Amino acid sequence: MNDAGTHPLERMFRPRSIAVIGASGDPDKLGGRTLLHLKELGYAGRIYPINRSAPQVQGLPAWASVAELPEVPDSALILLPAPMVERALEDCAAKGIRHVQILSSGFAEEGGEGIAMQARLAGTARRHGIRFTGPNCLGSISPPDGFFGTFSSLLATARPGPGTVGVATQSGAYGSHIYAVAGFRGIGISRAIATGNEADIDVAAAIDYLAEDPGTRVICASLEGCGDGDGLRRALLKAAAAGKPVIVMKVGSTEVGAAAAATHTGSLAGEDRIVDAVFRECGALRVSSIEEMLDIAYVCSLAPLPPGPGVGILSVSGGIGVLMADACIEAGLAVPAMSPEVLAEIRAIQPVAGGRNPIDTTAQLGGRMHVFEGISQAMMRGAELGSVLFYLAHIGRNVPRFPPLERSLVALRRNFPNRLVVAVMTHVEEVRLRLEAEGIPVFEDPTRAVRATAGAERLRRLRGEAEALPPVPALPALPALGGHEAAAKAVLAAAGIPVPPERACATAEAAVRAAEAIGFPVVAKILSGDIPHKTEIGGVMLGLANAVAVEGAFAELLRRARAARPEARIDGVLIAPMLRGGVETIIGTLRDAVFGPMVMFGLGGVAVELFADVAFASAPLSPARAARLVDRVRGSRLLAGWRGGPALDRAVLEAALVAVADLAAARPEIASIDVNPFLVQEKGGFALDAVILTLDTPPGDA
Amino acid sequence: MNDAGTHPLERMFRPRSIAVIGASGDPDKLGGRTLLHLKELGYAGRIYPINRSAPQVQGLPAWASVAELPEVPDSALILLPAPMVERALEDCAAKGIRHVQILSSGFAEEGGEGIAMQARLAGTARRHGIRFTGPNCLGSISPPDGFFGTFSSLLATARPGPGTVGVATQSGAYGSHIYAVAGFRGIGISRAIATGNEADIDVAAAIDYLAEDPGTRVICASLEGCGDGDGLRRALLKAAAAGKPVIVMKVGSTEVGAAAAATHTGSLAGEDRIVDAVFRECGALRVSSIEEMLDIAYVCSLAPLPPGPGVGILSVSGGIGVLMADACIEAGLAVPAMSPEVLAEIRAIQPVAGGRNPIDTTAQLGGRMHVFEGISQAMMRGAELGSVLFYLAHIGRNVPRFPPLERSLVALRRNFPNRLVVAVMTHVEEVRLRLEAEGIPVFEDPTRAVRATAGAERLRRLRGEAEALPPVPALPALPALGGHEAAAKAVLAAAGIPVPPERACATAEAAVRAAEAIGFPVVAKILSGDIPHKTEIGGVMLGLANAVAVEGAFAELLRRARAARPEARIDGVLIAPMLRGGVETIIGTLRDAVFGPMVMFGLGGVAVELFADVAFASAPLSPARAARLVDRVRGSRLLAGWRGGPALDRAVLEAALVAVADLAAARPEIASIDVNPFLVQEKGGFALDAVILTLDTPPGDA
Repeated sequence: MNDAGTHPLERMFRPRSIAVIGASGDPDKLGGRTLLHLKELGYAGRIYPINRSAPQVQGLPAWASVAELPEVPDSALILLPAPMVERALEDCAAKGIRHVQILSSGFAEEGGEGIAMQARLAGTARRHGIRFTGPNCLGSISPPDGFFGTFSSLLATARPGPGTVGVATQSGAYGSHIYAVAGFRGIGISRAIATGNEADIDVAAAIDYLAEDPGTRVICASLEGCGDGDGLRRALLKAAAAGKPVIVMKVGSTEVGAAAAATHTGSLAGEDRIVDAVFRECGALRVSSIEEMLDIAYVCSLAPLPPGPGVGILSVSGGIGVLMADACIEAGLAVPAMSPEVLAEIRAIQPVAGGRNPIDTTAQLGGRMHVFEGISQAMMRGAELGSVLFYLAHIGRNVPRFPPLERSLVALRRNFPNRLVVAVMTHVEEVRLRLEAEGIPVFEDPTRAVRATAGAERLRRLRGEAEALPPVPALPALPALGGHEAAAKAVLAAAGIPVPPERACATAEAAVRAAEAIGFPVVAKILSGDIPHKTEIGGVMLGLANAVAVEGAFAELLRRARAARPEARIDGVLIAPMLRGGVETIIGTLRDAVFGPMVMFGLGGVAVELFADVAFASAPLSPARAARLVDRVRGSRLLAGWRGGPALDRAVLEAALVAVADLAAARPEIASIDVNPFLVQEKGGFALDAVILTLDTPPGDA
Repeated sequence: MNDAGTHPLERMFRPRSIAVIGASGDPDKLGGRTLLHLKELGYAGRIYPINRSAPQVQGLPAWASVAELPEVPDSALILLPAPMVERALEDCAAKGIRHVQILSSGFAEEGGEGIAMQARLAGTARRHGIRFTGPNCLGSISPPDGFFGTFSSLLATARPGPGTVGVATQSGAYGSHIYAVAGFRGIGISRAIATGNEADIDVAAAIDYLAEDPGTRVICASLEGCGDGDGLRRALLKAAAAGKPVIVMKVGSTEVGAAAAATHTGSLAGEDRIVDAVFRECGALRVSSIEEMLDIAYVCSLAPLPPGPGVGILSVSGGIGVLMADACIEAGLAVPAMSPEVLAEIRAIQPVAGGRNPIDTTAQLGGRMHVFEGISQAMMRGAELGSVLFYLAHIGRNVPRFPPLERSLVALRRNFPNRLVVAVMTHVEEVRLRLEAEGIPVFEDPTRAVRATAGAERLRRLRGEAEALPPVPALPALPALGGHEAAAKAVLAAAGIPVPPERACATAEAAVRAAEAIGFPVVAKILSGDIPHKTEIGGVMLGLANAVAVEGAFAELLRRARAARPEARIDGVLIAPMLRGGVETIIGTLRDAVFGPMVMFGLGGVAVELFADVAFASAPLSPARAARLVDRVRGSRLLAGWRGGPALDRAVLEAALVAVADLAAARPEIASIDVNPFLVQEKGGFALDAVILTLDTPPGDA
């Protein structure tokens, strides 16, 4: 956004003039406190208090309604009781105001009539081209402009300073907690907005704005639900394309939390692992605490994302060095050992230095603080490091002794401008500010420093993987959807997913002929669209070695099916080859109400249920994303050749994943596909069983 | 310890008089800085600077040697260069000083001659009954006594206050980092010690002291290695018996970290999961960051451990309430829904309150801060809660408005004195101190509050499970150890572990007779003490259905064994029944150099290797601990009846674990036992294969 004002939300965050509808002289009231914040905290724009009865409010001239204002303000804040908000919004529309923040509560969050009132607000806004936040929201702030359009009581005692971290939250308390803690820690905020009930502008729309905003370098977002999956994807991808890290929280990740979130926002939290997959695909890093969010945002706001996972650790304490090495490995970073050449270089500088990485300088430095310069640069030159972390005990509290160390850190940062340099130490503010000014984050706790570094590194990796969904492919004509296994497999085969050579047989004679053609031993399975879970009724018989066995199995399967499900329509028996060897996997799809078709991959056996070892991705799936989906399943290591066994055919598996995802994406009437198992062999792979449910399949049968 | 001075280390931590050997007038030198700390920070005991050449040091009269002192001081600190330390220690011995801290470095940590010098110090001390810390240690502090016997440069700018948290660390930097951060956060320290090279007193000995010290309520410990496993067990159990929570860190938990720790301390870190098991068995909670350690210590120092995992959450923000509920579930706590009766009571107090737990009071409280009192007490009365957590946004920064809320919190705390009450909010120090004085911890970050609560609750559970190892049982006479599978199984059977009815057969005819007696189908396995891993050479043949098959298998197994291992001594073939059904598990033992015999349990198949789903315990094993060992393996859920299958015979499994552990503990010549698999069936269970290695088994065969 080169030309200020081009983004539709620019005037929400940075109005040149603003009306405060419901302004009050009493700072204990929301309309009084908000006006006070606008007046007192440095906002340079024009403020128009709107108050029906007072000619002046807090010493400013007041107007009885927006109609009387001498200009059309860029934005209006509404702080009236809920029943008066509709009329106020209409007044704004009539005046030509196009950006409104409705801070009043008493709408959808209270249910009943509140829901209808909120819907009418949305309708009015739509008719008049008004964009608005809320209702029931905390407003927005823009510290670089001194603009604090919010009633947050926090501002009485603490205020976030200007900076480059943009914040978009649904919950106001979440937002103000973030501003507060950011303020205490000296992390500056560019813009922050809390979207409340999201009748119009949601967190995704706010991210979209922050992705364009030149004052924002890092985006922190928190969601409770999401109504517009595609909007969220687009906004996150836009931020990734702009090179802005997005760190996101979504509450309701557990069943208890999801139930509470549903009560609180009335929105369905959705399957948490699906939201998780969408964040990852769009380059956003999900975290689970506000502190972690701010730690990572702090690093990203000061320094580039580290170019790789390698970390060099330089510590005045052996023990803390080891602690940090452990924390690096646990967080997914690497701690490569320094080469003998680098170690020789280091010991020439500090003979008692120990270790290969971490390097333990020992605390016996006396006045020789400058040794860090040579050691750290030798490490950075000599190994593939994305970051160097220094543990410096309490040196950061010793202002007179700090300068030689500061020079070492700054020299490293400047000589390797695309790497991350982090100082870990107890410290005084003066020292911290000096390092931050040079792009060097400072932490007190070693583990938090490591985890924040790991977060920055994961953001780099995620950014590299972020990509829009591929276009939905045009599939060839498919057989009819629905029905039994053979029908499902015919659809899969037509969509390019390999299925075994097998035959649907209506008679025992046909079954014997099929078995002879396929080759013994064979498998026989009951065929019925009414019996999707065949094994539960004994509807699968394995290892049939000859014609007699096949004939007997045919009769037995029919008997079992009729006994278990007398009403089921039986279409015969499927004769299939008995395939052995390889690894059984599961490929599934489902249609998420918010995010659309999603693919699931996991290993067969107990891995899925016992260890929840499954991964999700959006459909359609690019080949690269299919490969990453497989990688994200721990059990996939079995595919690479287990205990000296041969490597299995990953290419066939990945192609099948792409094809299944394409099928789910191209045919919106498919509710779910369940290929269980998909057998991956040394050469090739096959869908051994499959169920496809369409949206009109009665759920009782699923 | 009712009578001060009865514990052998009391005079180390709380000397009435102290000699400072190597005292200097220059506070930049270690001996100068340490003396300054003793002089200036409130120590009321008698200080004797020892300095060869100066009659006065820092204004205090100085002595040329300890020999000349007018009394025998309780303790001496040695701060001389390494080569002068031995002589100083002998002087202490001659004078009758029995407590010495050797702060000088240049000993085992530097290798070479330093190792020998350190060994001589230990010998001298032993001969004279001297207990000492170090060398290469940071000394000890006792803030309630104003005693700071350390050169830590931290004290120039920050100093931990008096309190009830005891700290025992090996690394000095670890220790001073903990003091520093505790000081900044207002967490008071009772005693703290850093043990350095641990030539005599180790962290376990320090824990032993802190367990008795009446001024210590909570113990924080950090280890890099451990030389005395039984000493550590005893000290931890003593603390548990005294009702003192122990929170412990051990670095080197990852391979990279362990390698670095080995370089740094010269001590083997050992198999990390074994240390982990020992901590747990002795009631100690292991954590992975200093911050987490202090968060939990903070809670434990102020309030009782919560009596159960149930948490009530009361939040002014719906979103943060959900965040906390998620964090509770992820941390292993429970968030029980309030009953309709309790909800009715809550809504009578605050009609807009939402949710069932978390309870969202909403931020619309105006002046009605007192509602928290009724709501929180209704929750506590109405559900099984160990803790109640309040999220209060920024109310803690508003000193004038805080009192009604404070009254609510204090009333809850007093009415339910054995429960934990935690406030989460941004706050000013005055408010925090007032709540802490009432035993209410205050956190800023919601997630950290939850994790600290979870830590306290885990400490309660661990304390209930802490128990000494059962006595090593007297076993009946056992067959000879060593040799092939049949020999191993004979030992297992004699030790009470069920094995299948099977026979070792020297000829094909004997094999056929055995198979007929056992019943077809059978399994045949090669028997050779030189081939412990039979499957690798095709030495196991399954499903032999008749005599011809058994005869053929006998010949084939011999042929395969001779082909693969021409030099192996072959003892025949084992004929065993073909057992089906049930779940395959793995029971193993190993002998840890520090902690002695340990048992391992896991599931068979890919679970162990792919998901590391195994758990360790010390041997011998009580029945209760055997049950917990099984519970700690995720895959054990299969035993309870998987997907509607029957429950399996856990009792037989647990009895087998106890018996295997007894065997390993009773026979110190056993290096390892590997029962893989132990098949657990619906009724009964069997060791299907077994290898027992003795300490003299050549490792190449294992």
